[in-house]
Amino acid sequence: MSFTLNDLPLREDLRGRSPYGAPQLEVPVVLNTNENPHPPSPRLARALADAVAETALGLNRYPDRDALRLREGLAAYLGHGLSAQNVWAANGSNEVLQQILQAFGGPGRTAMGFEPSYSMHPIIARGTGTGWVSVPRRADDFRIDTDAALAAIAEHRPSVVFLTSPNNPTGTALEIADTERILRAAPGVVVVDEAYAEFRREGTPSALTLLDGHPRLIVSRTMSKAFALAGARVGYLAAHPAVVDALQLVRLPYHLSSVTQTVARVALDHADELLGAVADLRAERDDLVAWLRGHGFAVADSDANFVLFGEFEDRTRIWQALLDRQVLIREVGPPGWLRVTVGTAEETAAFREALLAATGR
Amino acid sequence: MSFTLNDLPLREDLRGRSPYGAPQLEVPVVLNTNENPHPPSPRLARALADAVAETALGLNRYPDRDALRLREGLAAYLGHGLSAQNVWAANGSNEVLQQILQAFGGPGRTAMGFEPSYSMHPIIARGTGTGWVSVPRRADDFRIDTDAALAAIAEHRPSVVFLTSPNNPTGTALEIADTERILRAAPGVVVVDEAYAEFRREGTPSALTLLDGHPRLIVSRTMSKAFALAGARVGYLAAHPAVVDALQLVRLPYHLSSVTQTVARVALDHADELLGAVADLRAERDDLVAWLRGHGFAVADSDANFVLFGEFEDRTRIWQALLDRQVLIREVGPPGWLRVTVGTAEETAAFREALLAATGR
Repeated sequence: MSFTLNDLPLREDLRGRSPYGAPQLEVPVVLNTNENPHPPSPRLARALADAVAETALGLNRYPDRDALRLREGLAAYLGHGLSAQNVWAANGSNEVLQQILQAFGGPGRTAMGFEPSYSMHPIIARGTGTGWVSVPRRADDFRIDTDAALAAIAEHRPSVVFLTSPNNPTGTALEIADTERILRAAPGVVVVDEAYAEFRREGTPSALTLLDGHPRLIVSRTMSKAFALAGARVGYLAAHPAVVDALQLVRLPYHLSSVTQTVARVALDHADELLGAVADLRAERDDLVAWLRGHGFAVADSDANFVLFGEFEDRTRIWQALLDRQVLIREVGPPGWLRVTVGTAEETAAFREALLAATGR
Repeated sequence: MSFTLNDLPLREDLRGRSPYGAPQLEVPVVLNTNENPHPPSPRLARALADAVAETALGLNRYPDRDALRLREGLAAYLGHGLSAQNVWAANGSNEVLQQILQAFGGPGRTAMGFEPSYSMHPIIARGTGTGWVSVPRRADDFRIDTDAALAAIAEHRPSVVFLTSPNNPTGTALEIADTERILRAAPGVVVVDEAYAEFRREGTPSALTLLDGHPRLIVSRTMSKAFALAGARVGYLAAHPAVVDALQLVRLPYHLSSVTQTVARVALDHADELLGAVADLRAERDDLVAWLRGHGFAVADSDANFVLFGEFEDRTRIWQALLDRQVLIREVGPPGWLRVTVGTAEETAAFREALLAATGR
């Protein structure tokens, strides 16, 4: 008799679930997880390695538990008069969000999101025992219906509200005025997940501009996307210093390794290089949106490094047909839609060709 | 009016708490967090950096979510016929333990520990909404009273039982026969936290020997102590593959960075060097225990790289007197006792001198 997961005393709410994650397939054109297609240069890789060599000589010691130098660097990058006291960092923004829910959510409390949105929000809520209330976005343009949002907030009194701007997987940015209305109405903390902020179009604001005067606002960011450091796992947030104090009550001690702190600091020192591709990716995205629309596809406005497009009777068939042509995109978002990451010009060209073949357009 | 933590909608059970962690003080002799005093050699630091240089060229991509090569390396290190399917890794054993509680504990469930023990066990239980039942160890030798343990298990039916061998902060190892009795009685999973296992004395067994035939047993380990890699944050566990399947339901996706995976793999390739100091530290520990006893102190038997000693009317005064002499130890464990990490011969000599001066012996 073999022993399986079903024989273990697993939590009831986990039974029958599958681990979260996009398929990790070996395919020439990988456009499924919104990675930045441009790797660090050999020069930067060497700078990272040299810094790690120095850090390695002290690896027998625990890291700086407060990651103070890294937080100073992140605050300087963000600007807006922020200091290290406003910033907190963890192993990817998923861990940042988990810490927020551990401090402000948890059993007997509720978090709210506006879906379709980043699917880790409800997963992390569940993982921390926090209730989840999903409010639908408008079906026509995937924007948040602010009146409906305020009504839902009044009804459910969520301890944590997740806004996502630009929103994943739709690419939709949020108006500052709407964020402000939600901030005024929300009884708890409001998290604006800005993982893709650096890709937003000219004139689209960041919620960082609202931090002054809104001590229950948390803006989360990541180095995974624009900074092209998905493999380094560095997420962070900006907020009132009291929020950072709260997170220090729930963070695991020494959660962020000395090596991670070093890698992130060196990357910040080379921000110009790492962010150098962002302008190209934005232009590439705008071209892709126009091209898709020119070919008769429905396309959501995108302020991110990905594009949501449709609509397909059978999106799984299209996804598979693209994969058969060596192009991996993501089957995610509202039924009938698919999401493609903006890659290099060559990768995007491969995607266009495969899509035309797959759809017969 | 300034805004503070008290103005935030923090969870009620966190109010008034302080962040966990030993004081991070700048002192010449640091013997307070059970670090290995021997840093990686310049040769190893260079090997780590070279491997990181290669990894850095792909940092724009997400890590291997399953950390398969690292798990293979850890399984090979542990032996006992284990494979990657038996092993899971995370950012320090704290994150491993948190994932175990997220999968098998949580709201409405209870974890049990035998205290004094590692204080993160109840903290992580609370952080995951898991109830905590503390059963006292025997006052004379800090061993677990197995009959009392079985009675407490029968009464509370804990979903997770924490054993710790060698136990922190007492240094006490657990008999295999006792572990087996507890395993048979426990209705849920049993975690044997073996963070200090490599330091155990000749003849003291590891719970790894029990894995075969005990699919609810989890043995957690770390590279922070014997491997002298506290700064790299690599904890891991060995268990039945079904346990690893369960943890994959709660782990944050891509929780372990590509750089961490690389650093840990290179460290495993250099295990002989990194573990080279363990024999010396064990001898140093045994000498320190004998010396303390020779000077009339009470000392708990230690299978770890630290020693619990006492008893003091006012241990805070002794701790401070040592700190005044530039020796930082830890005020932890049962009242009247103090814990000192085994450092280099020079550090231990400084501790002995400071202790004699502080106590007037």
